[in-house]
Amino acid sequence: MFMDSLVRELFTEICQIPLIDPHSHINPHRPASRTLDDILGYHYYTELAHSAGMDQKPLAADVEPRQRVRTILAHMDHFDNTAQYAWFLDIARTFLGFSGERVTAADADTLWDAAERLMAQPDWEDKVLHLSNIEKIFLTNDFDDPLEGFDTTRYVPCLRTDDLVFRLDKPEVRQRLAKATGIEVDDAANLRRAIGKLFEYFTRHGAKACAISLPPDFTPLPPFSLPPDRGGIKKEEAFWMLAEYCRDFRLPFDLMIGVNRRVYRNGVYQGQDLFDQRTSLLQYAELFNAFPEVTFCISVLSSGQNQELVSHSWIFPNVVASGHWWYSNIPAYIETDLRARLQAVPKTKQIGYYSDMYKLEFGLPKFNMYRRILARVLADDFVRPGILGETRAVELARCLLRDNVKRIFQV
Amino acid sequence: MFMDSLVRELFTEICQIPLIDPHSHINPHRPASRTLDDILGYHYYTELAHSAGMDQKPLAADVEPRQRVRTILAHMDHFDNTAQYAWFLDIARTFLGFSGERVTAADADTLWDAAERLMAQPDWEDKVLHLSNIEKIFLTNDFDDPLEGFDTTRYVPCLRTDDLVFRLDKPEVRQRLAKATGIEVDDAANLRRAIGKLFEYFTRHGAKACAISLPPDFTPLPPFSLPPDRGGIKKEEAFWMLAEYCRDFRLPFDLMIGVNRRVYRNGVYQGQDLFDQRTSLLQYAELFNAFPEVTFCISVLSSGQNQELVSHSWIFPNVVASGHWWYSNIPAYIETDLRARLQAVPKTKQIGYYSDMYKLEFGLPKFNMYRRILARVLADDFVRPGILGETRAVELARCLLRDNVKRIFQV
Amino acid sequence: MFMDSLVRELFTEICQIPLIDPHSHINPHRPASRTLDDILGYHYYTELAHSAGMDQKPLAADVEPRQRVRTILAHMDHFDNTAQYAWFLDIARTFLGFSGERVTAADADTLWDAAERLMAQPDWEDKVLHLSNIEKIFLTNDFDDPLEGFDTTRYVPCLRTDDLVFRLDKPEVRQRLAKATGIEVDDAANLRRAIGKLFEYFTRHGAKACAISLPPDFTPLPPFSLPPDRGGIKKEEAFWMLAEYCRDFRLPFDLMIGVNRRVYRNGVYQGQDLFDQRTSLLQYAELFNAFPEVTFCISVLSSGQNQELVSHSWIFPNVVASGHWWYSNIPAYIETDLRARLQAVPKTKQIGYYSDMYKLEFGLPKFNMYRRILARVLADDFVRPGILGETRAVELARCLLRDNVKRIFQV
Repeated sequence: MFMDSLVRELFTEICQIPLIDPHSHINPHRPASRTLDDILGYHYYTELAHSAGMDQKPLAADVEPRQRVRTILAHMDHFDNTAQYAWFLDIARTFLGFSGERVTAADADTLWDAAERLMAQPDWEDKVLHLSNIEKIFLTNDFDDPLEGFDTTRYVPCLRTDDLVFRLDKPEVRQRLAKATGIEVDDAANLRRAIGKLFEYFTRHGAKACAISLPPDFTPLPPFSLPPDRGGIKKEEAFWMLAEYCRDFRLPFDLMIGVNRRVYRNGVYQGQDLFDQRTSLLQYAELFNAFPEVTFCISVLSSGQNQELVSHSWIFPNVVASGHWWYSNIPAYIETDLRARLQAVPKTKQIGYYSDMYKLEFGLPKFNMYRRILARVLADDFVRPGILGETRAVELARCLLRDNVKRIFQV
Repeated sequence: MFMDSLVRELFTEICQIPLIDPHSHINPHRPASRTLDDILGYHYYTELAHSAGMDQKPLAADVEPRQRVRTILAHMDHFDNTAQYAWFLDIARTFLGFSGERVTAADADTLWDAAERLMAQPDWEDKVLHLSNIEKIFLTNDFDDPLEGFDTTRYVPCLRTDDLVFRLDKPEVRQRLAKATGIEVDDAANLRRAIGKLFEYFTRHGAKACAISLPPDFTPLPPFSLPPDRGGIKKEEAFWMLAEYCRDFRLPFDLMIGVNRRVYRNGVYQGQDLFDQRTSLLQYAELFNAFPEVTFCISVLSSGQNQELVSHSWIFPNVVASGHWWYSNIPAYIETDLRARLQAVPKTKQIGYYSDMYKLEFGLPKFNMYRRILARVLADDFVRPGILGETRAVELARCLLRDNVKRIFQV
Repeated sequence: MFMDSLVRELFTEICQIPLIDPHSHINPHRPASRTLDDILGYHYYTELAHSAGMDQKPLAADVEPRQRVRTILAHMDHFDNTAQYAWFLDIARTFLGFSGERVTAADADTLWDAAERLMAQPDWEDKVLHLSNIEKIFLTNDFDDPLEGFDTTRYVPCLRTDDLVFRLDKPEVRQRLAKATGIEVDDAANLRRAIGKLFEYFTRHGAKACAISLPPDFTPLPPFSLPPDRGGIKKEEAFWMLAEYCRDFRLPFDLMIGVNRRVYRNGVYQGQDLFDQRTSLLQYAELFNAFPEVTFCISVLSSGQNQELVSHSWIFPNVVASGHWWYSNIPAYIETDLRARLQAVPKTKQIGYYSDMYKLEFGLPKFNMYRRILARVLADDFVRPGILGETRAVELARCLLRDNVKRIFQV
């Protein structure tokens, strides 16, 4: 995105705001990359390379990582138009000393060696965080994660609950749950006790949010309104319990709405999921009405649903618009969605952005992409028309990138 | 929105066009505000303040209005990023002599006093209309509105029919209908006679349109195609009669499509309604086919449906694209929707904008918001590429803001 | 669209790329217009004139063509704001020597005479193609088209299959099929043999694609998964066979998704079709999974579905995003949709644009519309932010406008 001098000034100021990243998939025991394979193993690169013609053999566990990286880079000229390629270029330049115009297959070994050397530094993690100006990062923890052995003030635990709602019929999930809670779950009453134990454990270990991703056709309903059934625990029942515990434990509930899993069944790992635009936040009306005390931080997968998110955040006091997720996390959609949110949602009810990253090195390029767009929208829609001065525009950015996260999640 | 010199020139010219506002909720017996409470009591402010954390106590009838205004203003710094805040700032500057950069809680008493003094002037209504360059304003009249005691050439009656279709099962609605028409409605034949009386009364009293708002799942169908039923008057039946009377009385029919009522059940007054993006104008195909003589002026609640509106107005001679409604009435959506309409719908089939206002003071900031966007779109999409000269661009604006309204509604 | 110097330079360079137009309705025996009636008889003009108030009498076969043209032009000032009007102006200027600012009814006879004189030139077809820089054009051939008497390297055959899936219950379609293949089709086995013959014939005669348009509620499913039925050949069964033959004959399958036929039943010829935004590419998941060897070139009718198209092209190796179709073929939607595709879909998996034209003269204004937008998006999103140099930006354009078409369709 082109930046004139006002946009550049705003961008520079916004970059000074220390970030709290409210959603990631960082492994706190190994947060930074150790090789270039950690970077290019991100599903965005494997799926784009596969989509552009790479078969899956290079992704097998027994392939030499350096060779895998060569193969992925060899396909990159098929997708060097994408935002994801631009993230990689940003990483190569910022963290790996790359100074070329484009990354191509010819750079594979140089980049591999640079990465190996640099990432081996004992303070690499700190360096990356410092360069990225990130202060805290929220995690995505399985319900049976022990949450031990890392600094939970830097890496903030978050109880991820997809398994408890959508995979509770799987024996291995019940076994993990039994092991974590000491409770053999076979009915709703048991499940309630087990979930209670999880919430206790997680909040005692610094968890600041509960989170779940939901398919487009899911409609949360209170248990009493569900049709009678042959038995078993219904998804809606489990979900409703989670909302009740969020209320009781005063945890915000992150709802990531709209993903269909395993649509492309032979896709690469984590590159199989898509969505169905035929979904509505109206499906959540009962939930939002029933839990006025719970803050629901909502992400939607399709930009088409952004107006519903804007309108629901504008009307429901307990609904917050959160980030730009996955398939909507490209500049064209971020810009459109952000403009509408800034024009219609109270500024205190917007979580600007989260990285969704698996490795720390992605924080910088992803937040940079967002901050560039934010700077331009603030310039065009607020500063130039005389609605806000530059200082106030940067305050608005701080609200989105830091203050709201601190207040909403109490960190 | 930033205006370069071409945009500013176009905006200035467009502001010279005397407006006919084809949809409002003005009370013609009390069109202008009398206090600041009338301004800040607009549901946009009460709902945004509530969404941002204000409880509903200040909104109770027994709260001193000046105190209510203070409380709402005290919450405004939570939503001073919104388009609605910008309207208020525009009102404060244009009508209340405010000269600050931002309105805050500290301005409550000064603004209150200024409003009290200024709005007490006997010619306040005329002043507001004059400053706003508004010539005529359409009303939204209940079916039992006597339509007397006001100038119907300035305040044009419009028969609002939601009650007749969606609340006819309520005894109080039937009683009001009996009182207004002398007919006790208990079947379709009675209803037809009663509605006939209403159309006669309304058109005799200067009504120029029939209007209704519709939920996203409503599908108008001719009575013969409806499934048989236990009895009672079906919504579709009542709706179809309205279309028949619009045809017989040559009234355009305003359809405001897409609102779900009472979604947030504990919301503030008029701040409870939302929408479901899963709706289609295809639901109206039978209606548009069956009534080629009726002009249907269509508003859609979600910007996502704008392309359907564009395409239907492009294909159906009796479909007109009308205004930018409610949740789509923010610059980001107006701009997107307007550009598509200007590129694909015959210019004679577009009603540019309506205020939807309850108090006259909102005409100016709302139309200004629209006119600024219109000026920019005309500059970027028509004048700069050499498609229209400036004079013709302003004529196109006049078509949207005045000529089409005059011709379509015969005012 | 306004073009600054960078955009203008890019546009000029992009215009040098010889085009291969991968979808049109050209009649190869009469590709160019012979009169102005051929131009203004395009459904865009008849339907816009009708939508803006023209009745259908001037469209009758027995009306003198010159008179019909006068009547359509007399209505043009009702839609001279549209993109379609801009195409006509471009044609009048480029091909008919028109030098005015606007075309009006007063120009009817002059333009008629100019067209008559110019189009009678024996090399008119070649001149138009040369001026338009178009090298090859794909056709839309009925299954019983003999495909003879024209140069199939210039006009590339494409098997259009709507009849075989959606109108196979019509006796006249079965008769045409029997005549073309020698097979009386009365069950699925027969149909399979008949379609096999068609694929053989078409590929032997230079066909490079199979194509079909599909209604928004269609969901392709494998035959074994269909519910049992009273008999007859199911649409899904016929469609699945086509995909199987595309696989066996290595033909890409163009899916044009989302059109409802005959929505406005009294509309002009080809001006009756609309769409329903409630549709999803998820409906095609089984198909995309079942035929990894078939390249599906997908067009969607509504811009709202573009994000699904972007995401499916990003994930599925066999899905390609293709062109900007019909109701989405206006600058406002092309720009939005194109930006998202360029940011998220591998560049090798995008077919930039096709003309969809019936007469050669429309190639130039339609591709120009696209190229102007492409030049601006490349400037704003790639060149100015330093992601691509100008030369590489033009290479990206060549990929979209030429290289991908050549590779995907093997021409």
